[in-house]
This record gives sequence, C-alpha cells and structure tokens, in this order.
Amino acid sequence: MSSGDPRPVLIGGHWRAARAAGHFRAANPQTRKPIGPLYPVSTREDVDDALRAGIEAAGEIARASAERIAAFLETFARNIESAGPDLVRSAHEETALPASPRLADVELPRTTDQIRQAAAAVKSRSWTMPTIDTKADIRSMYGPLGGPVAVFGPNNFPFAFNSIAGGDFAAAVAAGNPVIAKANPGHPRTTEMLARLAHEALLDIDLPPAVVQLLYMMSNEDGERFVSHPSIAATAFTGTRSSALALKRAADRAGKLFYMETGGVNPVVILPGALRERLPETVEELAGSCLLGTGQFCTQPGLVLLLAGDTTEDFVSNLIRRFEESPTGTLLGEGVERNLERSVEGLMKAGAERLTGGSRQPAEGFGFQNTLLRVDGDRFLKNPLNFQREAFGNETLLVIAHDTAELVDVLGALDGNLTGSIYTSRDKGEDALYAQVARILRRKVGRLLNDKMPTGVAVSPAMNHGGPYPAASHPGFTAVGMPPAILRFAALHCYDNVREHRLPVELKDKNLTGRLWRRVDGEWTRGDITRV
Amino acid sequence: MSSGDPRPVLIGGHWRAARAAGHFRAANPQTRKPIGPLYPVSTREDVDDALRAGIEAAGEIARASAERIAAFLETFARNIESAGPDLVRSAHEETALPASPRLADVELPRTTDQIRQAAAAVKSRSWTMPTIDTKADIRSMYGPLGGPVAVFGPNNFPFAFNSIAGGDFAAAVAAGNPVIAKANPGHPRTTEMLARLAHEALLDIDLPPAVVQLLYMMSNEDGERFVSHPSIAATAFTGTRSSALALKRAADRAGKLFYMETGGVNPVVILPGALRERLPETVEELAGSCLLGTGQFCTQPGLVLLLAGDTTEDFVSNLIRRFEESPTGTLLGEGVERNLERSVEGLMKAGAERLTGGSRQPAEGFGFQNTLLRVDGDRFLKNPLNFQREAFGNETLLVIAHDTAELVDVLGALDGNLTGSIYTSRDKGEDALYAQVARILRRKVGRLLNDKMPTGVAVSPAMNHGGPYPAASHPGFTAVGMPPAILRFAALHCYDNVREHRLPVELKDKNLTGRLWRRVDGEWTRGDITRV
Repeated sequence: MSSGDPRPVLIGGHWRAARAAGHFRAANPQTRKPIGPLYPVSTREDVDDALRAGIEAAGEIARASAERIAAFLETFARNIESAGPDLVRSAHEETALPASPRLADVELPRTTDQIRQAAAAVKSRSWTMPTIDTKADIRSMYGPLGGPVAVFGPNNFPFAFNSIAGGDFAAAVAAGNPVIAKANPGHPRTTEMLARLAHEALLDIDLPPAVVQLLYMMSNEDGERFVSHPSIAATAFTGTRSSALALKRAADRAGKLFYMETGGVNPVVILPGALRERLPETVEELAGSCLLGTGQFCTQPGLVLLLAGDTTEDFVSNLIRRFEESPTGTLLGEGVERNLERSVEGLMKAGAERLTGGSRQPAEGFGFQNTLLRVDGDRFLKNPLNFQREAFGNETLLVIAHDTAELVDVLGALDGNLTGSIYTSRDKGEDALYAQVARILRRKVGRLLNDKMPTGVAVSPAMNHGGPYPAASHPGFTAVGMPPAILRFAALHCYDNVREHRLPVELKDKNLTGRLWRRVDGEWTRGDITRV
Repeated sequence: MSSGDPRPVLIGGHWRAARAAGHFRAANPQTRKPIGPLYPVSTREDVDDALRAGIEAAGEIARASAERIAAFLETFARNIESAGPDLVRSAHEETALPASPRLADVELPRTTDQIRQAAAAVKSRSWTMPTIDTKADIRSMYGPLGGPVAVFGPNNFPFAFNSIAGGDFAAAVAAGNPVIAKANPGHPRTTEMLARLAHEALLDIDLPPAVVQLLYMMSNEDGERFVSHPSIAATAFTGTRSSALALKRAADRAGKLFYMETGGVNPVVILPGALRERLPETVEELAGSCLLGTGQFCTQPGLVLLLAGDTTEDFVSNLIRRFEESPTGTLLGEGVERNLERSVEGLMKAGAERLTGGSRQPAEGFGFQNTLLRVDGDRFLKNPLNFQREAFGNETLLVIAHDTAELVDVLGALDGNLTGSIYTSRDKGEDALYAQVARILRRKVGRLLNDKMPTGVAVSPAMNHGGPYPAASHPGFTAVGMPPAILRFAALHCYDNVREHRLPVELKDKNLTGRLWRRVDGEWTRGDITRV
C-alpha cells in the first residue's frame, strides 16, 4: 500500500483495504489544517462484511470463558498504557485537548481504569446478577445479546468514550458481545491506534479476532442501514442529538436496541442563600465547570437558574468578569465551532441577551469567545424549548426568575437532562425550597447534585450518566459505571427446569467462586444452594 | 344516566360520562351475541383529560410513602377477593374461559398473589436496588418515571394481565407511577368492575384517586397519539403484534418507553431420545400444552421441531389422534377466530400440510378445530418467516428436520420468542446434541426450558416472560415476576453529593428497615453505612 492510500479498516479479524466510497482526513483544531493519513469512507459492502463476521464472532465468544474475556480487557488496558505517550500525542493533535494533565493524566488513566473495572465485573460475574427460585427451579441471569454491538464514539473524549476502548466498548464486550466500532471522524488515527492495540490483545488471548472491528465513516444512509440490520444486536451512540435521532429512528423501526447519550443543558439552580454565603466561590465553581475543556462536555452547565435580586446581579457581574478573563480554549473541530455559533445565534434570536462573548474567536484555530447569555424567566417560559437548545462548547445561559413561583414554572418546563444541580446555603435555612426544586428536577434528570457542579463523571457503580429522553433513550440505564453500564448490552436469560449440569456456571447449585452474590429466594447470598 | 347510556369512564378520580365518539358492546363467545352494557369509544378529549390528571397524580404519588402504595395494592387485592364470584361470572361471560378451575381457582388467586408480591416489593423497597459508593458519596436507586403509564391489556387473561389488576398494572403502580388503563374490548365489564375496586381502594387509602384511570376504547389514531403524548411516561402493551407495532412506532418517534409482549410460536424441540423413552407421556404433555385454554396463551407451543424417523412418525400419529379426540374449546372472540383461520390458511399456502383440523368449528360459539400442520425442514428453510406466523389459538405446526444439520439450520432461522423448550432422554446420552440446540436457542428466547412445556408462567422473581424482538421490545426486561417486572417502569435516580437529610430513605446511612439489601461499595449488605 503506497503512503497515499487510505488506511485500512479492521474487518473479520484482519486489517484490509476498505471498499471505499471516498476518504477523509482529520483536521488539527489549532491550525484548521488537515493532518494525518487518509481514512476511508466505507461502502455498505464493508458494513455487510463486518456484520457477517460479527454474527459469527458472537457465536464464538458465547463459548469463551469469562476469564478469557476479562484477560482480553486487561491485556488491552496494559497495551494502552504501554502506548500511552503515542496515544496522547495523536489525540492531542487531533483534538487540541491538552496533552497534560487532561489526556495523559486524567483521561487515559480513567479509560484503562474503566476497562479494568469491566474486566473485574466479568471475572466476578457480578454483572450477571443471578436470581434463583429454588422452589420453582427457575433461574435467571443476564447474558450476551447474541449479536454484534455497534458503538459510535463522540468527538470530545478520544479515549474514555472512544468507540474502541471507551465505556460503551468495554461494557458491550464485558457482556460477551462483539463490537463493530464506528470511529469519530475527529480522531481517526487515535481510534486506529486503539483498534490495533485491541486487535493485538485479542490475538494474544486467542479470542475470535472479529470481536473487535473498526470502520471509520459511512454515509448517513448506510449508517441507518447498519443500526437497523437484522444482524446487529444493539447500538450505543454518544454525540450530537440530530445524528442520534436519525439513527434511533432507523433502529427503532427494526426493533433494534438503541442507546443514545446526547448531552443537554444540565440545569444548575443556585438559590439565594448559596450566593449570600459564598458568592466568590460559587462564581469560581460555575465558571470553572462551564469553561473546563472549552465547555465541551455532555454535562457542561448550559443553563443556570437564579432568583432575581441584588445578590444575583452581583453574582452575574462577577461571572461576566470571570468569563472575560478566562483564556478561550480551542474547539474540537469545525463542526463544533459552526454549531456553537448557530446555537448562540438561535438563543439570541429567541430573546436571550448577550452578556459577554457571542462571536468566533479571531485566532488561527477553531474557537469561540467565552459566552454568557441571559434571559428572564417570563421570557423563557414563552418558548422554553428554544431556550434549551444545547450550545455545545463554552457558552452558558442564565435564566433569572422573578420569584419562586416562576422558578418552579421554569423547572417544570425543562426537558430531560443528564444532570441537575442545586446550590443552597450550608445551613438548613433553604431546605424547604430545596425540596420543592428537587422534587421537580428529580424527574427531569438522571443525576441530581447538591452543591456540586455536574462536570466530572466518576466511574462509580452508583453513577448515572443517563437520564430521561432526550438526554438518553432509556431512563433506566447508565452509560458510565461498572457493572450497571454493562446491563444495556445484556439479555435476561431464564432457565426453567434445566438440569443442573446443563446450567451456566453462574446458576449451578455451587457458588462458583464462593464470592458471587446471587439473589436466592429473595435474599442476596454468596452461599451454595442446597437441594432438599 | 338512563340504562341505555354507555357506561362511564374513570378520569381524574371520578366516574363520568365519556366524551364519546361511539360505543361498543362485548360479545358472549359461546353465543356470538352481544352482551352487557354499552361502553364508550373515547375521543381525544377524554385522553387529554386523563393525561392531565395523570401528570398531576404522578407528582402527588411521588410524595406518598411506600407504605401507602403497598396498602393500596393490598386493599385492592382484598377487594378483588371479596368480589371474586361476581368477577368470575363476568369474566366467564365475556371470555368463555371456564369459571372453574381456570378463572376462580387459578387466574384470580394468581392475580391477587401477583398484586401482593408487588406490594411486598414496595414495602421492602427491594425493587429500588440501592447502590452506594461511600468513597465518592454517590448513591443511586430506581424510582418512578414521573408520569402516567399507559397499560393495554390482552384478551386472554381477564384478571392476571388485565390493564387494571394485571401484572403490568401492579408493576407500574409499585414503581410509584399512576396508570391510565386501556381496557381490552373483549371484557369491558370485568375491567370496569376491577377499576371500581381499585378506585375504592385508592379512596380508602387516601391516595390521589387519579392514580388509576380507565378508558375502554379509542381510535387507532388516538391510541398512537396517546402513547406518544408528551405527558405519558411509558406504555405496556400485551396483545397482537400488528397493534403493538403500530403503537410502538408512534411511541418510539416521540422517545417514549414502549414495552410490548406479543407472544410468538414458542419452539419446542423434541430430540429422539425423549420419544424413544417416553412417547405417550410426551404426546400428552405436548397436546395438553397446545390445547390448554384452547391454545390462547402467549407461550403456547406453536412450532414443534422433530428429527425425521420412525419414532417421530409414530409420535405424529399419536399426536394427531390426541388432537382429534380432544374437545374443541371456545375462542375468546370473533377477532381470534378470524385471525386463527387466516393464519392457518397462510401457513398452508406457504406449504404446510394439514394433519388434522384446519376449519372453523360448526358450533354456536366462536371456535376452530384443533389443528395440526406439518412441514419438512427444507421447505421451512425456503421461507422461514412465513412458517413462523403465529396462529393464536389451538393450532400447532410440526417441523420435521431431515437430520441434525437441518435442525440446526431451522433453529438458526428462528425469530425472537418468549420461550424455547428442549426435550431429551433422561440419561446424558443426548447432552452433546442438547448443548448444540441450546446454544442457538439461548439467544432466540427469553426462557429456556428443559423437559417442560412453556405454558404456565410462574410468578417468580427468576421468571423471564419476555425475550428478543419481536416477542418483546427489550430483551433485558420481564413482564412477569416481582420485583424484576417493576424495573420496566423505573428510572435510575442518582444522588451525587446530596446531603444525608435530603436523601430518600432508601439511601440514607441508616438501613431503614434493617432488612433492605443494598449494594454498598460492591457488596450486598443489610447494614448501615458508617461515615469515616
């Protein structure tokens, strides 16, 4: 292959030239110039080949032991660490995210940690949640879906949410499913590097090499065909809502599982007591959360709810200053820059007042001024959906409610979101108002925070990185946190009157490891089952 | 209201005249004659009123204690028992299902037992599955969806799957959601009676009376609008696939949860060893399961897979005789009769051979001859989907595979189903073949049975009454079995850094009851949490 040829795709266990309909290159966000090699836009022949190999791999991986799947994940995590400096260099070039601390010291360790947590869940079998009814001799557990899972990664986490190596990937494989990754076109080289490391790990562990496949791009039409294909078991999509919804429609029509995670405005309610008590700290916390990573997080606070008053005006002035004094970061790509500009225009057209920023950054790279907008509660309520348009990036809209009743109305008009935060005074003086706000917010968000900003999603079994539609497609599932995130890619497998020697190891009378928690006749236990 | 007026609907806590677009009456399946009072076909004004009241009730029930929700379910169960004889009489008239033992001694006790199991899950809070990360101070649990749940009940279980009193109803309420029931038009009077008992229980317990609402019928268009309305939180539908899919499309487009459970053909694989060993018993078991309740079960064995051979021919002859000798039951309604006739015609047109039956029953009531069809494996494989058309009722198709390889191909061509059964010899002689069959069947079905027929769905926490699409809409959820069935109507509620006194009781440091199992730092425990 000459150096000018597009890079190969990973299909059926082999790196091979794509059957390409075209090609593309990534851009360096700091220079707006194309960088790196050419990457192919796959035709549907590539997609079909990957699906065929994926179905076969699903049958093969179903026969692999949990230990081997865990070993693959652990080897992959080690491979990523070994290649750390190269990965960081590539991801930094492709995304302009700071090499350190962000990529090298935060995101990369988070990614390998997440993969290892998935491996631990596989080894312990904790994610299978065995439930046993000894009287009826009915036993059930979660198991793989029986087909490949499509994973579409977002632009803003080249490691931790990568379609290879990210949380969805780790969760889908942990449940025993092959993955067909669709790279984010913002960082194809980083994704290719990760796929090579995964592929090497598969070969090392002797798992079917088609358990991990990689395509870089395909037409929208072929994407819809992909997620609705009879051979696909499920799709996990993290990214922009419009792309998510087009794919979701196609998947839904075919009865295919589709998990989307598309961000939102993540309302932050700051009650007066918090401002009276700790205004400067709250300015710092909010501005820090809004501008971190140039605001390019699913959980960035895009909507801040305040009650009208002098302290609030003081807070707003300070916040404006803080936005203006903060350096403007580089945006991930041209699409982000364009969408951010359009969204800010849309919000202003709807009636939001510009407090600062609002224009493209006159710099070499992709960028937009730190932008703060403002709207009064009554105006917000005239067209609540227009004011909840996500402006992905370094923009935040302040909504000033005239009184508590209006604040409650604004909260009631909120759409589904990943997170909702409430700041109050440290004493119990605002408990009643907190309760009123929390009651409404609770049904609107997946994660409710108290005196804490929503950015920074801990990889915890108690995390919910998900929420009501349209933040996510199902409010019962989280995209982050092992083992719960694994359940998205699992089927409930029930065994009724199946002879003991034919049961999966997790459901046999003897507790396989002596440490696996099982729900036996309604109680969680690590014990064996004694047949009467 | 004069006796000729249609019966009232239950909206917003009151029985009131429907804003009707028309009306209908149930039919007595044994005489084909209309019976009972007129019931209204609601307009969208009724639907909108119910949705408005449902949203308000969702906010109110969120403030009710678990004890009160449980008390409602328990009172409702007692009310059902008190009204047992009247309910049985009504259900028998409307469905022709035997008053005894079926309705009075099996289905009614099953229904109250199921409601009480839901109440127990509510009281113990076991369904909320609290997960606590003490280091990160992140805590999560399942909670209500925050809006009303629409429940569409099927024709074949006037009590146990009734849109009021059935499993979906009990599960949705247990999760703290109001229910808007859409009665099955086959048994409107039984449903009205159940709604009255539920309504009385709500008033007794002083829960918001709009927690239970009832409409009897609406146009298809209004039904689609109903399940996709911004105010609806989720829909549970049990019934025919074509109706389910039309509603699902509407709900999906709006991002609304939609759980369907639509039956299927429930493949039963009978390996030669079982026939050689216990042919007469297997004939009895299979015929019993196929013809029980005139075959009108979601889990009725509609497809039996056999290997060609003399024993199989012997088995088939015996089965034909058993089908011919068995009395023909009454079908639930005209729609069932018509659909069964069409499906049998469709199967025969596709190439299935008629072994016995195949025509309407020349009787006064709705009925169809006990029908056995047959097709060879190679013919099945030429058009596998056509031969998997469900014929709801007393019909079964035998597929005779030429050899094991063909059997494996037939299994591979199966669509998603609720159940799959495998019969083998009692010794270990067929273990290898069992493993081969089970591996394929496992990914096609929710419940895998061994030497057992699929009819008879135990209300067990380990049950899976669900399966891969199109048997159900999500393979990770069951429609039967408390507490798991409750999770369909729950959102994952995460609390991040929320002050202890603001947490729900389930997540506070102290274990509320001392008996609630919680997953704390990865281990299930009933203990309190000690803050360091």
